[in-house]
Amino acid sequence: MIVQEQEAIDKAIEAITGDMGALWITIAAILVFFMQAGFTLLEIGFTRSKNSGNIIMKNIMDLAIGSIMFWALGYGIMYGSDLVGGGFFRTSPSDQGYFFFSASDWYNLFFQTVFCATAATIVSGAIAERTKFSTYLIFSAVLTTLIYPISGSWYWPFDDDAWLNTAGFIDFAGSSVVHAVGGAAALVAAILVGPRIGKYVDGKAQAIPGHNMAFGALGVLILWLGWFGFNGGSQLAWGGDDTIAAGSVIINTNIAAAIGAIAALFFTWARYKKADISMTLNGALAGLVGITAGCGAVNAWGALAIGLICGIVVVLSIEFIDKKLKIDDPVGAISVHGVCGFLGTVLIGFFALDGGILYGGSAKLLWVQTYGSLAYILWAALASFIVLFILKKTIGLRVSEEEEVDGLDLHEHGVEAYPEHISSQNN
Amino acid sequence: MIVQEQEAIDKAIEAITGDMGALWITIAAILVFFMQAGFTLLEIGFTRSKNSGNIIMKNIMDLAIGSIMFWALGYGIMYGSDLVGGGFFRTSPSDQGYFFFSASDWYNLFFQTVFCATAATIVSGAIAERTKFSTYLIFSAVLTTLIYPISGSWYWPFDDDAWLNTAGFIDFAGSSVVHAVGGAAALVAAILVGPRIGKYVDGKAQAIPGHNMAFGALGVLILWLGWFGFNGGSQLAWGGDDTIAAGSVIINTNIAAAIGAIAALFFTWARYKKADISMTLNGALAGLVGITAGCGAVNAWGALAIGLICGIVVVLSIEFIDKKLKIDDPVGAISVHGVCGFLGTVLIGFFALDGGILYGGSAKLLWVQTYGSLAYILWAALASFIVLFILKKTIGLRVSEEEEVDGLDLHEHGVEAYPEHISSQNN
Amino acid sequence: MIVQEQEAIDKAIEAITGDMGALWITIAAILVFFMQAGFTLLEIGFTRSKNSGNIIMKNIMDLAIGSIMFWALGYGIMYGSDLVGGGFFRTSPSDQGYFFFSASDWYNLFFQTVFCATAATIVSGAIAERTKFSTYLIFSAVLTTLIYPISGSWYWPFDDDAWLNTAGFIDFAGSSVVHAVGGAAALVAAILVGPRIGKYVDGKAQAIPGHNMAFGALGVLILWLGWFGFNGGSQLAWGGDDTIAAGSVIINTNIAAAIGAIAALFFTWARYKKADISMTLNGALAGLVGITAGCGAVNAWGALAIGLICGIVVVLSIEFIDKKLKIDDPVGAISVHGVCGFLGTVLIGFFALDGGILYGGSAKLLWVQTYGSLAYILWAALASFIVLFILKKTIGLRVSEEEEVDGLDLHEHGVEAYPEHISSQNN
Repeated sequence: MIVQEQEAIDKAIEAITGDMGALWITIAAILVFFMQAGFTLLEIGFTRSKNSGNIIMKNIMDLAIGSIMFWALGYGIMYGSDLVGGGFFRTSPSDQGYFFFSASDWYNLFFQTVFCATAATIVSGAIAERTKFSTYLIFSAVLTTLIYPISGSWYWPFDDDAWLNTAGFIDFAGSSVVHAVGGAAALVAAILVGPRIGKYVDGKAQAIPGHNMAFGALGVLILWLGWFGFNGGSQLAWGGDDTIAAGSVIINTNIAAAIGAIAALFFTWARYKKADISMTLNGALAGLVGITAGCGAVNAWGALAIGLICGIVVVLSIEFIDKKLKIDDPVGAISVHGVCGFLGTVLIGFFALDGGILYGGSAKLLWVQTYGSLAYILWAALASFIVLFILKKTIGLRVSEEEEVDGLDLHEHGVEAYPEHISSQNN
Repeated sequence: MIVQEQEAIDKAIEAITGDMGALWITIAAILVFFMQAGFTLLEIGFTRSKNSGNIIMKNIMDLAIGSIMFWALGYGIMYGSDLVGGGFFRTSPSDQGYFFFSASDWYNLFFQTVFCATAATIVSGAIAERTKFSTYLIFSAVLTTLIYPISGSWYWPFDDDAWLNTAGFIDFAGSSVVHAVGGAAALVAAILVGPRIGKYVDGKAQAIPGHNMAFGALGVLILWLGWFGFNGGSQLAWGGDDTIAAGSVIINTNIAAAIGAIAALFFTWARYKKADISMTLNGALAGLVGITAGCGAVNAWGALAIGLICGIVVVLSIEFIDKKLKIDDPVGAISVHGVCGFLGTVLIGFFALDGGILYGGSAKLLWVQTYGSLAYILWAALASFIVLFILKKTIGLRVSEEEEVDGLDLHEHGVEAYPEHISSQNN
Repeated sequence: MIVQEQEAIDKAIEAITGDMGALWITIAAILVFFMQAGFTLLEIGFTRSKNSGNIIMKNIMDLAIGSIMFWALGYGIMYGSDLVGGGFFRTSPSDQGYFFFSASDWYNLFFQTVFCATAATIVSGAIAERTKFSTYLIFSAVLTTLIYPISGSWYWPFDDDAWLNTAGFIDFAGSSVVHAVGGAAALVAAILVGPRIGKYVDGKAQAIPGHNMAFGALGVLILWLGWFGFNGGSQLAWGGDDTIAAGSVIINTNIAAAIGAIAALFFTWARYKKADISMTLNGALAGLVGITAGCGAVNAWGALAIGLICGIVVVLSIEFIDKKLKIDDPVGAISVHGVCGFLGTVLIGFFALDGGILYGGSAKLLWVQTYGSLAYILWAALASFIVLFILKKTIGLRVSEEEEVDGLDLHEHGVEAYPEHISSQNN
């Protein structure tokens, strides 16, 4: 009888623990949703005022198009029970309710939808101030419908059919699945679109300052905030050991962001003799992107190390891409999301408590992390190249020179974002 | 014995499920609270810089006055157990603790308080840039103390004494109870206050651009965020079937917002040959307002349809009110909240899974939805008219011409919101 | 047998209630984290544009440095089990896992970390626009590592070794422990750093308007939002009586903020014949700071009284400090956090339902509240004085006159926060 009773208790507790987990995932998804505002403000702040309206539209549309496409198709491609192409992606029988989602675990759809929108938005910053709006919308739709869901299907169903899952790959919340994918797409897009007019003069990179650092900073703080949902919510449960694990994930996230900002600050201070604001902000983001893969696999010391490394590397990477590779990335998205996404994934090979080289593991984990992350980068780069190449040969990637000089707001949207400000410049 | 034990388990689970529901309602209320920041930024962004300080004050005071008045009187009028005037509104015996609230379900008071403040704030945008501050405060106090609580009492106690509840009316989170009420009050207020100086020249509507589209966009994203609490929290519970229902509500909310933005974008793009920013932002809000009534009664396809319709109608409505009716509504509040609030309520008659015409229902639901929503609109319009008419005949509704031209900030508040910016214009 | 079963049920319920409490604390901590964005925007908005970048850096670094230092040392000093100096502060044996935190209740570390960062940030506003960045960083590190954790150790472990706890002191969420400590440090810092150039001309205080009231208002709304986590989360539990208590705390918080804003509005309106915006915003903050100590000990009427008093006193205090004491505090931090923190703590002696004079208590509670709060103020003032005096005699507190006139952004950080805006001023 006691056994019977205990079973009844266990069952009731299990149900309510599941509900509590759903509550946490829902709240985490709401936080991740808010990251769209963070990305928007960051990109607005770090670019010129004549393109602010266009940036708003791109970010709103990433969210809007991504929400519809992921509900309609993305979720089924990512989480379906049937494999296509030997596991290259998935499909979903209609009774599963994953295409045009109609199953009952809505909180999972919500959480994954806002992740998908995040991946799309990363590209926006790297090709700001010169890309055709219509072209951007099509690319965003392809990314949210196909490129990202296919990436996700390789790992996040966490089942035996997800090849990177069975390989032992670790990417807790998406340093690779989301950020390196977005960063690689951003790299390809920035190359194909080409630099802004005036960015490279006589082969030398020119600084094109953004117009509002307060927006940039608010954007970063909102992103930092949202990341507690992004990483913490990826525990996908709450209660008992999950409470402890999610708490550790959140602290790791915060520590990596904090040390990333500190590292970038002191590194640039020593290097440029000025305490660089935009690099410090990017340092915090670099730490956040870097810890996203390993936040559930390392302890606070590991988070400290990963954040520190990413905070320094992001500075060097931004410089290198800007000055040596001569790729024009107005907000540093390629370095923050692509480079630090890759780096954070790989560093787990050293810092994972279970399997990391520094904790007695072999090089096996390091190897899996490396090829897993590279697979994501190659896939995203290749797929983006194909889509953007077709777009380039058809409707074109760039606005006209006149439109770019005047600002995209005027020609694409017929308005100025700050009409009073601009008129004061004409005095 | 097993029965006894099961009862003990059930009782314990019921208690903790109630607590979990209270947690969700509290968090949802905090999200709705944040919508005040969204409304403030939206209104600031879509109007001229010379009135930004005044807009801040109106929105802060809606919140402040509403919080006090709803605690003191509003909650008791809305949720009290005793009917007044045959159910026109309610009152509350003192031992109920509803006036000067002292009962124990504080989370319910909190949730309802932030809803009340939202209703008041809707009016603010429609009469921006020309209304006397003192007049506005009095109207806001009457709306939060009487007009809105009386509206609420007709339906949201969900008991047999709430006439629209017994009639089978459906308004899950307040397309009519909150938004159409606010929108109707906004309509009457905008008519009585009259258009801004320079808005209509030779009978033709002039565009008066807002001064900061970034604030406008941030405002919309904050509102979209807050709406997950507004609609999701209106499930008023969490756990089991409520978890599924609240999740569906949240997805419906997101889909309607997304398709509303997309619809407004492509509709205006085709119509004006420019991808219109402010209309796209209003399209998202239109979808949100529209789905607020039905988010618990329709499926994702219904949300898609309602959001799509509202996203197009809001564009036509804003044009019609501005150009044909010649009512000056600087932020489009009448169309977004009034028209789409009504429309969203009525469309349930078609799209409700239980009772909607498209799902095998009769015209009965459509009829109830129509007269229910009209009852709210008429009540809010009439009550607002009486209050504003009295105010017009006594202290007056409008600032002087000089104050309006110079900006309300200078005369009402003795400051400029952006002193450095303005001084640069005087160069 | 029934007893046995009931025990099993109770144990299961206790575990899940604990998890639910951890969820609430985590979410509350995320809200408190966001207050950093609120403080940043408030300080940016209320100061001149030439220092916005510097303000961003100070606030980001408070958060970054505080997060690392509190994880490494602060938590152990504040919550350790072993007393040092007869209870002056604490230390923590290594197996407790409190230094370089490695215990399992991560949510507690997270919640306390964001409180610590808040205390540091208060100082930032009072010494804005003239303080050396390097000096600020050192002071911020000392405050988050030592000054604040020592303050906290006197009370918040809530054990017999915390002398203010055993004395019967009441400071629910930190009117004294956080705000008066931050405010006292701000006072000492503002005196030692001295006023900004041009603030006092011929012994008369000059108004130096901030540059963006919209940022200021958004900052205040974010702070108000975050305060629901600050105070509500300080219940440190959720479920049953804790649900009721936390709800009451949240309503008290909201009522005090609301009436604080209303009181400041009407008081300044009567006094200056203008509805003062920045004072109204500060009135809301004054109410929030004031109710922070007593939100768990008073009812809504007490909250109303405390908020009202603080909303008026903050206006008088800002005037007095600015005009009579001639201490230059650009954002009013000393009055908001220091004066209202003290006042809110002391007023519990009158309004506490259990022990307050107005509810039949003796003067004992008033006395404990007074000397407890004074102890915090004296400690923070003394410790800050020592640190800042050493810094003054070594690396210096202030930037050069040239740097101050040009703006700290240009010299400390090598950029302008709004380059387009500034260039328009040079037309």
